[in-house]
Amino acid sequence: MYGIPASHPRYRSLLLRAHMAEEMERGLIVPEGLIAHGRGEAFDYIIGEKTMPFAAKAERAAAAHLLLAKCPVISVNGNVAALASKEVATLASSLPSLKVEVNLFHRTPARAELVADRLRSAGVREILGVHPTVRLRGLPSDRGWVDQNGILVADTVLVPLEDGDRAKALASSGKFVIAVDLNPLSRTARAADLPIIDELKRALVRVNSSVISLKRRRSAWARIVETTDGQELRRQALAHMADRLKRLARGSSQEQPPRAR
Amino acid sequence: MYGIPASHPRYRSLLLRAHMAEEMERGLIVPEGLIAHGRGEAFDYIIGEKTMPFAAKAERAAAAHLLLAKCPVISVNGNVAALASKEVATLASSLPSLKVEVNLFHRTPARAELVADRLRSAGVREILGVHPTVRLRGLPSDRGWVDQNGILVADTVLVPLEDGDRAKALASSGKFVIAVDLNPLSRTARAADLPIIDELKRALVRVNSSVISLKRRRSAWARIVETTDGQELRRQALAHMADRLKRLARGSSQEQPPRAR
Repeated sequence: MYGIPASHPRYRSLLLRAHMAEEMERGLIVPEGLIAHGRGEAFDYIIGEKTMPFAAKAERAAAAHLLLAKCPVISVNGNVAALASKEVATLASSLPSLKVEVNLFHRTPARAELVADRLRSAGVREILGVHPTVRLRGLPSDRGWVDQNGILVADTVLVPLEDGDRAKALASSGKFVIAVDLNPLSRTARAADLPIIDELKRALVRVNSSVISLKRRRSAWARIVETTDGQELRRQALAHMADRLKRLARGSSQEQPPRAR
Repeated sequence: MYGIPASHPRYRSLLLRAHMAEEMERGLIVPEGLIAHGRGEAFDYIIGEKTMPFAAKAERAAAAHLLLAKCPVISVNGNVAALASKEVATLASSLPSLKVEVNLFHRTPARAELVADRLRSAGVREILGVHPTVRLRGLPSDRGWVDQNGILVADTVLVPLEDGDRAKALASSGKFVIAVDLNPLSRTARAADLPIIDELKRALVRVNSSVISLKRRRSAWARIVETTDGQELRRQALAHMADRLKRLARGSSQEQPPRAR
């Protein structure tokens, strides 16, 4: 595909890059979204391109939080729509209380429609945020628009690939913020109550499995929530990355970095 | 600029992103170039966004290698032209033997002209590779084109932000390969004889200063070259990154990641 030989050691990564470039040409994502994707690639490369225990634990806790929430919302931007529309739709169908809201950093009406179309094709029935009418406190201009039936009234928000200012504003407004971010040093990961340091698709698949397995075990939710320290998991992510780089520095010629994602 | 508030903790980084996005819209860089820029950002973030001793040592050794070379060539792609045309021009004027060659992974005649125009405006007099006629062994299709008066006959090549396959092909052809790459795990950094793990602009400025200071100290060149182990410096870069992540994991709330580049 895209003229990339399947034998290339970074085949899946190259394929995804070509896909993201196409999504930008279609107008679904902005150029800055491609740069953000590159940052994510780098951090995932260091993590080892698989879900580590600190992430698996955060994903299970995210499921418990979403199940406990009165009004949980998942925020979807261009990169999220390009990378994981199907996974968003699957999660929304496993958890009918979860609202799906389009939330763009670089908002234009056309892009909001494109993101909504993509979600609709993936199977999301109700989509908020296409014509937002209210603004979140503490965010200037376009960046603060939210849906009055969605993020504005949410008690728990799942914000994958979110900008730092917005993650902070959401946390300051008293909502429980679950972020998905491959960079454990990002302002988003530091501001979130529960940062999931994992690749988006892998994360959503696991949050969904946990929602399904925990659904009928209501008694487990509070215990999981109480025994999870999101910022401690973030520190574990940093420690893991440090260890992995140290191992690679030592064995350099033997141990290879990941060959495929 | 670009509507970004100067008070933003990542102001310079955001400014550069907006510049790179514009360069893509002009056709100078390709969408994949933006993704690569993002990867670089992430690694530089972990390094601490300044030149570390392992990089400074590699930059000085690069200058010695370029001074010793019979036919040194610097390879320039779209990202290099967008990020550091001026620094390329300065280096070429400090070292008249250095040839400047346009070398594109995603080659079109129009992009080759754009890169050459950018270099010319920055002050580069002679530009090779705009109409290449020969191919480098071991590289398929468009990716192998080189200039018969440039890379084909070079003994030392400085390849900033190079693709792994091409760095390998250059090394296999017996040339001394100096790479500039922020990712110490990349195939390029592993294939190069002398990988410089530093941000491009910082690296070229320092290579240039070393060229100027070493120019008249011919007796020092061979000693510097002999006492520099490029792959050992790459391992030091990995070890530094591991240490920095470890420190950040420990002190997390105190020590802040870099606020500006």
